[in-house]
Amino acid sequence: MAKVLDKITPRDVDFAKWYTDVITAAKLVSYSNTKGSMIICPNGYAIWEEIVRHLDKSFKETNHQNVQMPMFIPESLLNIEKEHVKGFAPEVAWVTHGGEEKLEERLCVRPTSEVLFCDHFKNIIKSYRDLPVLYNQWCTIVRWEKTTRPFLRSREILWQEGHTMHKTAESALEETLKMLKIYEDFQRNILALPVIVGEKTEKEKFAGAIKTYTIEAMMYDGVALQNGTSHYFGDNFAKAFGITYLDEDNTYKTPFQTSWGCTTRMIGAIIMTHGDDRGLVLPPNIAPTKVIIIPIGEDERITKTVKEITKNIQGISYRVDDSKKSPGFKFAEAEVLGIPIRIEIGLRDLEKEEVTLVRRDTLEKIPVSISQVKDKITEILTVIQKDMYNKALERRNTMLHQAKDYEEMKNIAQNLPGFIKINWCGNVECEDKVKDELNIKSRCIIDEEVDGPCAICGKKATKKIYFGKQY
Amino acid sequence: MAKVLDKITPRDVDFAKWYTDVITAAKLVSYSNTKGSMIICPNGYAIWEEIVRHLDKSFKETNHQNVQMPMFIPESLLNIEKEHVKGFAPEVAWVTHGGEEKLEERLCVRPTSEVLFCDHFKNIIKSYRDLPVLYNQWCTIVRWEKTTRPFLRSREILWQEGHTMHKTAESALEETLKMLKIYEDFQRNILALPVIVGEKTEKEKFAGAIKTYTIEAMMYDGVALQNGTSHYFGDNFAKAFGITYLDEDNTYKTPFQTSWGCTTRMIGAIIMTHGDDRGLVLPPNIAPTKVIIIPIGEDERITKTVKEITKNIQGISYRVDDSKKSPGFKFAEAEVLGIPIRIEIGLRDLEKEEVTLVRRDTLEKIPVSISQVKDKITEILTVIQKDMYNKALERRNTMLHQAKDYEEMKNIAQNLPGFIKINWCGNVECEDKVKDELNIKSRCIIDEEVDGPCAICGKKATKKIYFGKQY
Repeated sequence: MAKVLDKITPRDVDFAKWYTDVITAAKLVSYSNTKGSMIICPNGYAIWEEIVRHLDKSFKETNHQNVQMPMFIPESLLNIEKEHVKGFAPEVAWVTHGGEEKLEERLCVRPTSEVLFCDHFKNIIKSYRDLPVLYNQWCTIVRWEKTTRPFLRSREILWQEGHTMHKTAESALEETLKMLKIYEDFQRNILALPVIVGEKTEKEKFAGAIKTYTIEAMMYDGVALQNGTSHYFGDNFAKAFGITYLDEDNTYKTPFQTSWGCTTRMIGAIIMTHGDDRGLVLPPNIAPTKVIIIPIGEDERITKTVKEITKNIQGISYRVDDSKKSPGFKFAEAEVLGIPIRIEIGLRDLEKEEVTLVRRDTLEKIPVSISQVKDKITEILTVIQKDMYNKALERRNTMLHQAKDYEEMKNIAQNLPGFIKINWCGNVECEDKVKDELNIKSRCIIDEEVDGPCAICGKKATKKIYFGKQY
Repeated sequence: MAKVLDKITPRDVDFAKWYTDVITAAKLVSYSNTKGSMIICPNGYAIWEEIVRHLDKSFKETNHQNVQMPMFIPESLLNIEKEHVKGFAPEVAWVTHGGEEKLEERLCVRPTSEVLFCDHFKNIIKSYRDLPVLYNQWCTIVRWEKTTRPFLRSREILWQEGHTMHKTAESALEETLKMLKIYEDFQRNILALPVIVGEKTEKEKFAGAIKTYTIEAMMYDGVALQNGTSHYFGDNFAKAFGITYLDEDNTYKTPFQTSWGCTTRMIGAIIMTHGDDRGLVLPPNIAPTKVIIIPIGEDERITKTVKEITKNIQGISYRVDDSKKSPGFKFAEAEVLGIPIRIEIGLRDLEKEEVTLVRRDTLEKIPVSISQVKDKITEILTVIQKDMYNKALERRNTMLHQAKDYEEMKNIAQNLPGFIKINWCGNVECEDKVKDELNIKSRCIIDEEVDGPCAICGKKATKKIYFGKQY
């Protein structure tokens, strides 16, 4: 057993090292010789496939259609919306040659696809009958990051990006919030992440957006992971691209736009919220394999029981580990992989017509009579899902702080991990001061009533806001 | 009705124009401002999603695991296998700058990922216990084509690429043929394509492969579309990359490798095999929407019947077109989109407790009593699938020719569309002569007995082979 477990640095000793150890031990990613790009291995990609399956279903249920845009953006096209290009040009990869020839115009590999969608929308939106357009794309984007960490910051990112156009500002804003809610529900109910939802400040919003809403998850170490954003663009891009439609009243109008995206970063959030010193702990609702069956020893009765149980639990994704490794090694491996329930089948239990279920999240051992295995598994998977959310919520709540003034804020920022909630005047000067002096950034403005002056400058506050360190 | 149909050039007047007209009318793709890259619109992407769903299921059932490799290949890595780089270097896109900095080593955007997989295999394959490795990747690749056509030839291609490593040459060859068979079955049974399966010649095989097997589909105009390939690499790449494993006998050995891929090009094959002058005709097994329900006129009894039928046919993917367009326009639109069955619900039929089913492939109208709609749909979908295959097969068979000598071959090549089957000596000189003089290329060597001398040089033949024009 030790062989596998020894590799993982304890979480409370060195969290960063623990994170990379877990990823390596669970074989989620592998380093590649393409600097800054990771290889997503089968165990990691299977989690991504489950994420895609859930989200894609939600997108389709809300009438979104999948499309595929080019991966290259001509430089002149990227340059059309000024704020946008300012935000992205410094971090894109440029293709300058095709085959043996130098290109007349260089192309960037998409860092996001607003301009490609706008260029297309200009062609397909003519009349009010063409609206709304509700598109989504699953693809890889590229951002030329200097430092990278698996799932958290990478030069190549697997993601989805929704891009929609609407007749009115109201319906675009409604869409922005609808998709934010889909992200929130998904992360709470499927990933068991107790996320905080709110609006980014002017300073932190997406390049070119009017409003950016964000899902902020807090990791085990109190550091924030921005885990999905939904943007309202107003008619900024539409005007820059000259997109108009003929309305029912026979006048030309400019449509209103949204975009929203989330990435493989969510896998990082699962690891850093739920993992422990033995490795991954996957919430049952996202675990590609929910049950692993481990026969202990070789015996006809054991083989028979494995068959009986696997026949019984059809519909629940399971694996049988009948390899020649020792039971201890298999247990440890199942734990590293974070499989929610392990079924141990040994002779001693069989004499009582029982097997042992082991919960990955608590390591609790539960003897179950063979005839009740399916019911018990279904029940325990639900319990694990709920318990994992609550455990993460409790831990997060211990790291949510409030500060009334700057002294208190400084004291918390320097001594305690987590987020700090304050009243804020809304001025970027105060936001900058906190960033420069306390090294924490604004996370999001939340929908709560102001109950005092700005904790930073002491003037009248207009918003409640969270600050915190981020990945 | 005319409004939609007029746009499509008749298939027998100008096949190339017909093809692009159908694609435009059915809104499968749209042209983009990124030269050589197409936009795959919702109607086109939905077909791709169905293709992915079917193939991915087959890959998983045969124990393949999905992974994601980097999209960039450092130049030095591409250069490792000599034949391979010779084949691909002239047609790759080069990234030379990241953000504002020039890269130390330029990166190509993957045209295929053999070298990336080999580089990774070198790290993960240590022992015979690690074999076989059975990986697959769904991704976008880039090949810098000079001329492009939607789905057939594009700078960006959506595809899957399988990459596997095996202990022995035999098991690698077995895998190569197993995946070829999965492609063949999928294309025959799901896409209703009567494909020809065989081996590529030395001249036409994949850069770096020992054997390349191919799926050759014949389009309505007699021109071939190479629709998926499966390669056996032997230990070529493994040796170039220094991949070895410690075998059970305690000696180091080199593993054997395969790769196999197919692309969105299959959508082109569906269009060009089954389409007609009214637009797309989709085989039921791949059609994203199998049934479209069109109410004729507004009446309470019609609305009630639509509800009754939709409730009845749950499990079959359907759409109701209750827009304000005229019934004729809706019929034409459903035909352009190739939806296998249209249900017309009008008052006259309702008086007889009937509705009318219309087959897209034959345009046959079938009155069906309302209570039997579901059974009849299920039955007719099966019939359409079978009939479409047989119709394509019959047409293809009329364009399969045989030639005994060069005169006959020349005569056919100059006068008849389709493939020409000949006995062949196996020498590249003969293959080149046909290519240069008759402008047709070898399609594939097939598993049939030789029954005469080489049709080209008259010397002893060793193989049966097909020649034909290609897209």
